[in-house]
Amino acid sequence: MAKDFRIGMIGYGFMGRAHTNAYKRVSDFFDLEYRPVLKAACARNEESVKAFAENWGYESIETDWKQLIARDDIDAVDICVPNNLHEEIATAAAENGKMVLCEKPLAIDAEQGERMCQAIEKAGVPNMVWYNYRRVPAVTLAKRMIDDGLLGRIFHYRANFLQDWTIAEDLPQGGAALWRLDAAAAGSGVTGDLLAHCIDTAIWLNGRISTVNAMTETFVKERMHNLTGKKEPVEIDDACAFLCRFSNGSLGLFESTRYARGHKALYTFEINGEKGSLKWDLHDLHRLEYFNYDDDERVRGWRSIHVTDHGGDHPYMDHWWVPGLQIGYEHSFVHQVADFLEGLATGQAASPTFRDALETQKICDAVLSSAQSQSWTEVA
Amino acid sequence: MAKDFRIGMIGYGFMGRAHTNAYKRVSDFFDLEYRPVLKAACARNEESVKAFAENWGYESIETDWKQLIARDDIDAVDICVPNNLHEEIATAAAENGKMVLCEKPLAIDAEQGERMCQAIEKAGVPNMVWYNYRRVPAVTLAKRMIDDGLLGRIFHYRANFLQDWTIAEDLPQGGAALWRLDAAAAGSGVTGDLLAHCIDTAIWLNGRISTVNAMTETFVKERMHNLTGKKEPVEIDDACAFLCRFSNGSLGLFESTRYARGHKALYTFEINGEKGSLKWDLHDLHRLEYFNYDDDERVRGWRSIHVTDHGGDHPYMDHWWVPGLQIGYEHSFVHQVADFLEGLATGQAASPTFRDALETQKICDAVLSSAQSQSWTEVA
Amino acid sequence: MAKDFRIGMIGYGFMGRAHTNAYKRVSDFFDLEYRPVLKAACARNEESVKAFAENWGYESIETDWKQLIARDDIDAVDICVPNNLHEEIATAAAENGKMVLCEKPLAIDAEQGERMCQAIEKAGVPNMVWYNYRRVPAVTLAKRMIDDGLLGRIFHYRANFLQDWTIAEDLPQGGAALWRLDAAAAGSGVTGDLLAHCIDTAIWLNGRISTVNAMTETFVKERMHNLTGKKEPVEIDDACAFLCRFSNGSLGLFESTRYARGHKALYTFEINGEKGSLKWDLHDLHRLEYFNYDDDERVRGWRSIHVTDHGGDHPYMDHWWVPGLQIGYEHSFVHQVADFLEGLATGQAASPTFRDALETQKICDAVLSSAQSQSWTEVA
Amino acid sequence: MAKDFRIGMIGYGFMGRAHTNAYKRVSDFFDLEYRPVLKAACARNEESVKAFAENWGYESIETDWKQLIARDDIDAVDICVPNNLHEEIATAAAENGKMVLCEKPLAIDAEQGERMCQAIEKAGVPNMVWYNYRRVPAVTLAKRMIDDGLLGRIFHYRANFLQDWTIAEDLPQGGAALWRLDAAAAGSGVTGDLLAHCIDTAIWLNGRISTVNAMTETFVKERMHNLTGKKEPVEIDDACAFLCRFSNGSLGLFESTRYARGHKALYTFEINGEKGSLKWDLHDLHRLEYFNYDDDERVRGWRSIHVTDHGGDHPYMDHWWVPGLQIGYEHSFVHQVADFLEGLATGQAASPTFRDALETQKICDAVLSSAQSQSWTEVA
Repeated sequence: MAKDFRIGMIGYGFMGRAHTNAYKRVSDFFDLEYRPVLKAACARNEESVKAFAENWGYESIETDWKQLIARDDIDAVDICVPNNLHEEIATAAAENGKMVLCEKPLAIDAEQGERMCQAIEKAGVPNMVWYNYRRVPAVTLAKRMIDDGLLGRIFHYRANFLQDWTIAEDLPQGGAALWRLDAAAAGSGVTGDLLAHCIDTAIWLNGRISTVNAMTETFVKERMHNLTGKKEPVEIDDACAFLCRFSNGSLGLFESTRYARGHKALYTFEINGEKGSLKWDLHDLHRLEYFNYDDDERVRGWRSIHVTDHGGDHPYMDHWWVPGLQIGYEHSFVHQVADFLEGLATGQAASPTFRDALETQKICDAVLSSAQSQSWTEVA
Repeated sequence: MAKDFRIGMIGYGFMGRAHTNAYKRVSDFFDLEYRPVLKAACARNEESVKAFAENWGYESIETDWKQLIARDDIDAVDICVPNNLHEEIATAAAENGKMVLCEKPLAIDAEQGERMCQAIEKAGVPNMVWYNYRRVPAVTLAKRMIDDGLLGRIFHYRANFLQDWTIAEDLPQGGAALWRLDAAAAGSGVTGDLLAHCIDTAIWLNGRISTVNAMTETFVKERMHNLTGKKEPVEIDDACAFLCRFSNGSLGLFESTRYARGHKALYTFEINGEKGSLKWDLHDLHRLEYFNYDDDERVRGWRSIHVTDHGGDHPYMDHWWVPGLQIGYEHSFVHQVADFLEGLATGQAASPTFRDALETQKICDAVLSSAQSQSWTEVA
Repeated sequence: MAKDFRIGMIGYGFMGRAHTNAYKRVSDFFDLEYRPVLKAACARNEESVKAFAENWGYESIETDWKQLIARDDIDAVDICVPNNLHEEIATAAAENGKMVLCEKPLAIDAEQGERMCQAIEKAGVPNMVWYNYRRVPAVTLAKRMIDDGLLGRIFHYRANFLQDWTIAEDLPQGGAALWRLDAAAAGSGVTGDLLAHCIDTAIWLNGRISTVNAMTETFVKERMHNLTGKKEPVEIDDACAFLCRFSNGSLGLFESTRYARGHKALYTFEINGEKGSLKWDLHDLHRLEYFNYDDDERVRGWRSIHVTDHGGDHPYMDHWWVPGLQIGYEHSFVHQVADFLEGLATGQAASPTFRDALETQKICDAVLSSAQSQSWTEVA
Repeated sequence: MAKDFRIGMIGYGFMGRAHTNAYKRVSDFFDLEYRPVLKAACARNEESVKAFAENWGYESIETDWKQLIARDDIDAVDICVPNNLHEEIATAAAENGKMVLCEKPLAIDAEQGERMCQAIEKAGVPNMVWYNYRRVPAVTLAKRMIDDGLLGRIFHYRANFLQDWTIAEDLPQGGAALWRLDAAAAGSGVTGDLLAHCIDTAIWLNGRISTVNAMTETFVKERMHNLTGKKEPVEIDDACAFLCRFSNGSLGLFESTRYARGHKALYTFEINGEKGSLKWDLHDLHRLEYFNYDDDERVRGWRSIHVTDHGGDHPYMDHWWVPGLQIGYEHSFVHQVADFLEGLATGQAASPTFRDALETQKICDAVLSSAQSQSWTEVA
């Protein structure tokens, strides 16, 4: 019989739903030593958290996260609240001996992130940050191909995360729904929200980024604030692009914006190596594009790999349906839970841990600092 | 509080898993009057069905479907066994007052299907056949666009379902894993398995098919049979293509095969009307291609609609994540359960009912008969 | 010094322009023993042919093709007039010892085509029919790959030629501009105009077609006739689809229409073999899609080959620009002239000759006959 | 009768061929007041230039460009030699009263370019620089759509020019074939060769670039030099990427490399505005992707415009074949000649003139300077 993995979920927004769905589904598709149990959901608004708990089947609710982390029947705390609240909760939970699964980005900045790492490592509890795109099968396949040397020496890495949902000038900022536009809650704009994903994947696939040179812009300078009821300056970055150099000598180019009309969540990356190249795109996440220079010249071309095969070849896919039938966005979270739980069983922590995620935080810090100083900036 | 909808599942293969997953997930994402309860799983092999029930959380098991349909604590029976077993189970279940959800195709042939319709209608129980592709959001959107007149008069309909998994000559036939290659269990080959899907969507989108002209082929004539342990003639159709005429005057062209190297489950359709055209493809099921002749000429082109928007515009999608984040194959089943349960609540039966699915059966019969007689054949 | 290849062109429409352009350009890009000389252009309307000759640089004009074919300074006659005029001109030209390059389809029907073959063979003059798509580099590459055995045993061939330019009911028929809608001038509708291309490519790539089963339709039954000034019945086929069997045991599916909204000239084919598959599409004619089953399973996918490489690998491309820079539609004609002239030099006739093209004519006849008799029809 | 436009061509490489082809073809497809005459071809190597002249039909040859520009029977000089030779020839030709058509980039740097502009403007002769991509119909269509306000306020512009032909370490540098790798002849690497194209299009579509921030890299540090016969340092940039700001407030991101495995000549751009977005790609140059935010939400998607329509809607295309039939790379040069000759007739100079092209030179200078100083740099 599987052992219980008893979860206390804090927050019930988009990520609260995505994580909860993952916990509920993982045991149906993966044969694991641990089986998640939805023990308690926690949020300040009692009515809302009650509805959430009832909808998803949490056994109980809490309205104070301090109560939650004090409970004996909770093994792990999942933090799905705005970024500015991560540190306090994660630290306290760890001190109480709870495992911590924290939504990305880890923290508001690297300084805070470093403190969180120290706290969690001192407590010695298993921990993870939800950079879920590592577990999209096509992205995992890219990782394996690169690690197997299929690309050879890397020359270039480029990634974009393009959205278009904040173009309207009358969109307000702040509050529960729009905290991502509020610098106090989010820390930054697209940098922490979107580029953090691009950076996490990049360093996973291509190693350390050593130095960056960034540009940011805020296109709409003032927005009505949901908390003050007044027009307030917008202090987040609406767009951010940066040049960088990786430690392996390759060049990087990253861009993110919420002002790219026509793109809803177009996260793309491409990596060019001596022997081959890879491309991926979140809008068709079940495909990986691959160019293999070793192919016979006359029949060489970019291959569109439909990442739905079985038999161990296409990561995670033997757990799902039959070849040709695609999975979706949410499955990346299921895979991440599966890997975390397998890590518990084997003692090999699933990545990215807090410490792994701190690296992304440092790069985000360097990016924002570079944009301000208008100069090349070393990653700390 | 939601009312229980107590399910007795018969079979535990690919479809047993897909349906079960749908029952388990629907209440998390849809607010419905009924909530599925996994009451019992049934199959002849006790060990296997026990493992299946445990994996998915069925409360009990049965090894004899007659026991299952006799139980008072079952509201609905879901039939996920080979086609040749549908009639007996469905009829008996209906006679016992159970709702019946039957995997497609409805029956071995239309004669059998007609008997099933009469039995289920006599019993007066809600019923449905799992032609799940109607509930892929992009396909549902196509239906709405056509019904809204965006295509105008229809000239052409074409559909393919291409696979490549039976090319190897040493693949055996028959038994639990490969009953789809055994005519005794499946009734036919690609016609009932794959073309039935194409036909169901086609008549839903474009109305009645009146006459057909088909060609079939069996490329590998003999295969080892898992039940007899000997080489036996292959009696199913490996490939089938047919021309047809719809009652609305448009022409149809359908093809299916398991010998199209490079295609895993490439179900595609295209419909051409006076004012516009639509295309869809199961390998990228979250996209719908649309050509609108009313667009200004110089900027006219096929649009690739990423069917992930919210707000009621993109069918079902407001129940899932945020715009730009795709769902997968399995969600079509969740939607079908949602619609069935909503139909129970409103009294408006969700399509396709047994009677709706009988129409597809009649067309399949005409197709197979035409292939044999080598002549144009009226749909009965 | 190159020898002169002195051309007499009959007709000045779309094909007259395309062929003339090919003659003018071939020597710039191909090093050949023969160099085309635009000797004379011929058409009944003096003013029009004069303008045409002046525009393109023909040295002289004729208004009677009998005068043209009688001239001593003409080596070859190019026939770019409606189909119903091919036989008389080609036969007379051949009898006068002229080489004949005839626009496709060869004839109104196979009976006429057979007479033409006999006449041209009796005269012993080099001859060719303008099935230009054989010389699109991507299509030629497909031919080479198939001949090299890269696809193995073939199971399926399918081709479409979809257009949408005759949907408007007020489009007239007949006359110089619209003779393709007039059965008297064209012989048939999409069958001779568009399917003939699909068939020519198919038999080149996949061998003989033995039996066919077709359906035709005329959506607009009457159109104003430009010659009579009255509404007249439309006697051509607006759409035609057919099933067929190739002599190598593979199945074929062909469709053509001028009522597929959104497609201008979408000629596509796909061929599925045991070891691989190929796809091509005229709207992006510089690309060939290739699936290679021998690729390592985890990185297998359809390759999009950008057929612009040099070095003998990509047919014809070393004559043009640099890798990555695409050519267009007209280049297929340049290649055909180059091959014809090389055939003159080597004595190896370039395909398709009249005799080669007669095969397509026979299949077209069988298709039209099958549509009328509503039955499977052997190719003569 | 058309007036003669007598050309003296200097150089016979890739660009010499592309321009010559354009001169030879333009009168066949465009009805113009001037008709190009291939008067003389000039290059130092007599044998080579003789072969070139004979191949293409130049009436005469010269081996000294000073002789060429002194001839009375030459109206215009076309400069297709390495960048470091542009100034001297262009200046002398202009002083001799010749029109000058100069291959891009205009000069080695902006200082030289400025002198060239002054010389040509003092001479008052018509002039043009061959930034041919402005005349790809899809790109011209993009220009018209932007000018018509279809995109609204612009937020983002991004462009790439990716190649992979210099990855091999044993590829030498310098000499006739490889002068693009030799800083002495080329001035810079990808910046002047490839980014110059991206920049020219960008400022044409989106206006002035005010400030840039660049990074360059030379991956292979030493190569055998064809002129010295020894290993020499590589002094060009193999890769260059830069951030920039346009005067209209939009952000730009540009990248070019010859180390992007799998891309032969992948020039792409994308522009995002409040009301819509556009994308284009040289590998499929006959297509323009367009997202129109004004489309009804449920059927909104990126449109792939096949830029082959007639009737004045798709730029230049009514001069070619029929809708659906694509043109290729070389046609952009034909269009540029047509526009230049029409400019002669109307007195409205076709863009880009030397002065227009100087702007791109200034931006290239700023880019290279920024890469060296590692700081944001104003465009002069």
